[in-house]
Amino acid sequence: MTGKIEQLTIPPRTLMGPGPTDVDPKVLAAMSMPLLSHLDPHFLKIMNELLDMTRQVFKTSNTFAAPVPGTGHAGMEACLINALEPGDTAVVGVCGLFGQRMADIVGRTGADLIVVENAWGQPLDPLAVNEAMNKAKKPKLLAVVHGETSTGVLQPLGSLSKIAKEHDALFLVDTVVTLGGCEVRVDDWGIDIAYSGSQKCLSAPPGLAPVTLNDRAVEVLKNRKRKVQSWYLDLTMLLQYWGKERFYHHTAPINMIYAMHEAMRLLLEEGLDNAFARHARHGRALSAGLEAMNIELPVDPEYRIPHLVVARIPEGLEDAKVRRMLVENYGIEIGGGLGPSKGQIWRIGLLGYSAREKNVLALLAALEDIFRVQGYRGFDPGAGLAAARAVYEGK
Amino acid sequence: MTGKIEQLTIPPRTLMGPGPTDVDPKVLAAMSMPLLSHLDPHFLKIMNELLDMTRQVFKTSNTFAAPVPGTGHAGMEACLINALEPGDTAVVGVCGLFGQRMADIVGRTGADLIVVENAWGQPLDPLAVNEAMNKAKKPKLLAVVHGETSTGVLQPLGSLSKIAKEHDALFLVDTVVTLGGCEVRVDDWGIDIAYSGSQKCLSAPPGLAPVTLNDRAVEVLKNRKRKVQSWYLDLTMLLQYWGKERFYHHTAPINMIYAMHEAMRLLLEEGLDNAFARHARHGRALSAGLEAMNIELPVDPEYRIPHLVVARIPEGLEDAKVRRMLVENYGIEIGGGLGPSKGQIWRIGLLGYSAREKNVLALLAALEDIFRVQGYRGFDPGAGLAAARAVYEGK
Repeated sequence: MTGKIEQLTIPPRTLMGPGPTDVDPKVLAAMSMPLLSHLDPHFLKIMNELLDMTRQVFKTSNTFAAPVPGTGHAGMEACLINALEPGDTAVVGVCGLFGQRMADIVGRTGADLIVVENAWGQPLDPLAVNEAMNKAKKPKLLAVVHGETSTGVLQPLGSLSKIAKEHDALFLVDTVVTLGGCEVRVDDWGIDIAYSGSQKCLSAPPGLAPVTLNDRAVEVLKNRKRKVQSWYLDLTMLLQYWGKERFYHHTAPINMIYAMHEAMRLLLEEGLDNAFARHARHGRALSAGLEAMNIELPVDPEYRIPHLVVARIPEGLEDAKVRRMLVENYGIEIGGGLGPSKGQIWRIGLLGYSAREKNVLALLAALEDIFRVQGYRGFDPGAGLAAARAVYEGK
Repeated sequence: MTGKIEQLTIPPRTLMGPGPTDVDPKVLAAMSMPLLSHLDPHFLKIMNELLDMTRQVFKTSNTFAAPVPGTGHAGMEACLINALEPGDTAVVGVCGLFGQRMADIVGRTGADLIVVENAWGQPLDPLAVNEAMNKAKKPKLLAVVHGETSTGVLQPLGSLSKIAKEHDALFLVDTVVTLGGCEVRVDDWGIDIAYSGSQKCLSAPPGLAPVTLNDRAVEVLKNRKRKVQSWYLDLTMLLQYWGKERFYHHTAPINMIYAMHEAMRLLLEEGLDNAFARHARHGRALSAGLEAMNIELPVDPEYRIPHLVVARIPEGLEDAKVRRMLVENYGIEIGGGLGPSKGQIWRIGLLGYSAREKNVLALLAALEDIFRVQGYRGFDPGAGLAAARAVYEGK
């Protein structure tokens, strides 16, 4: 290449994939404020406020509730590698890509890995999980995904938490797509370790992974026999960095912290319950609209992530063509399938700032147009929009 | 806490510590542009341009030259843990905090670690390095810090590169504080693996770590016997993500990538040689000013990082008080000492956007005022400013 590179231009987009999402202009404005040093007393105040807000969002009184300096996967890795070491056994629930990733990471810790699976598109079966926990002689950890972004399945956590407790194992939960979008109650649900990502329902740009650990988990960290395999993601040092010690660990990603501060502030200003209701309402409207267009929603209604709608691509439509037209003609991005569901499904996110009526209506209108252009006519014109509007009108 | 948290306010600061630095408003503006999805074709174009610019900045034709999604330390860790595995031996040069950090990380890889030390404030002695390499039977890697931010020492790399080659070992270099500020020639200097940080002379916010690997290093990655201990920092997967495969790895920190794109674009627009001359000029002016105020610069002139001035705190002055007054009265931040040099030295950075005449003069004027208030009078009033001005006027 090495020609002259021009200043960035960003084409306008409406992000309705499984993340990242659109971001409130207030968050972008906060992110672009001038830098402070990571040791500036004013920045320490911002860190303390962020700790406080992260606790509220996770519904926890844990001392540590703060972002790890990396994307959601960094949070996943930080939690797993700090909790586990060689000689331990972990049970990991896998029914989608993100469960697989957890299993991959556990495999790199030297701990023994027991995978309990279900088909993509299904939640874990508590009986199977219990069996796996029994099989593991003394499981140290049970790790599961709350909302599996690759399939749209919301995993009920109550019985799994109980199983973890009965086996005296840590209960570790991936809340990447659920935190801020629907109920996540770290303390009430007996979650020992949880992580999330900045770029889903928290609606900040990608680059931070909020993590929380309770005292029991911190105790496990303290009693490790060997150093954590990562220095960068060594949570004991991150705890000291965010704690009273203010022990210098890394140079905090200052502007990402600003963004997260503003994103969480806006979320708490709206109120968590209001935000959950908003996510659910737009998810319902979109689901009703798609079903009215005879699009199948393959996930069992009982296990759907409210704000991540998974739709089966109708026969006769080409995944790539539809998504390309959506982007090129309407500036709307939705997600495709991953792994075995590639080409089979769309994953449509109504996350954070993207969860709004205008997006639902614009997408349904755009799909109707594109379906027509591509010769798919298995629906009544206007039916999708009417069904979505009926949800909004409370009919 | 849990009181109402207000929208962020950021007090005005001039960042003259060892990083982060002030950031060009153009970079902040680029960073706050609306999000694209990490899979958007337009974002892929931005990634390609960033690859191209990163190559130019590292002066390399390596295929891979791209940011790791974390702060500088993530770059350090990514390079070390991918190159090393149990059974390998690495020689690490340590004469400051960042050398120590490298040694700590090597210790977590399971590889054998041989440390070759010198006192803080000194460069490594090539003879000692050669001896350590001989001691290691078949060293796989020699890792050194080019600019040791904790001490202000610039390590000459020529003979160390030769030693690495003679031992058929990979030559890994930390260029966190040097890249963009003074000459770094990855290809010409025989550097196999290098990493840097976004927040020093590249003058973007902290949160990304540019990394480059040559074919020889990539070959080592391919021939690993076991998986890298980190999934998040597995460079083979990052190579595929940034390469033609576009293999989905993590959700790129979109807005940080925007910022880095603009920061590198501005750097290349200025021209690397012009940027190096600018860094050196302001470093010289500040050094002359401080010496004219009878402040000792303890680092041997032959080994000084041009743009990171280390000054010994004069007797009778209290480190914390001076730095607090600088921040509270003048909004200027400089760095203190780390480790054994805590309370002994100041580290004053003229990095990236912060490297400008107004900052040098403002700092010298502020120091004169604060010294006077604190009763230190071992200098002629105005002498520091006059000496700095003389450098600017080419006298």
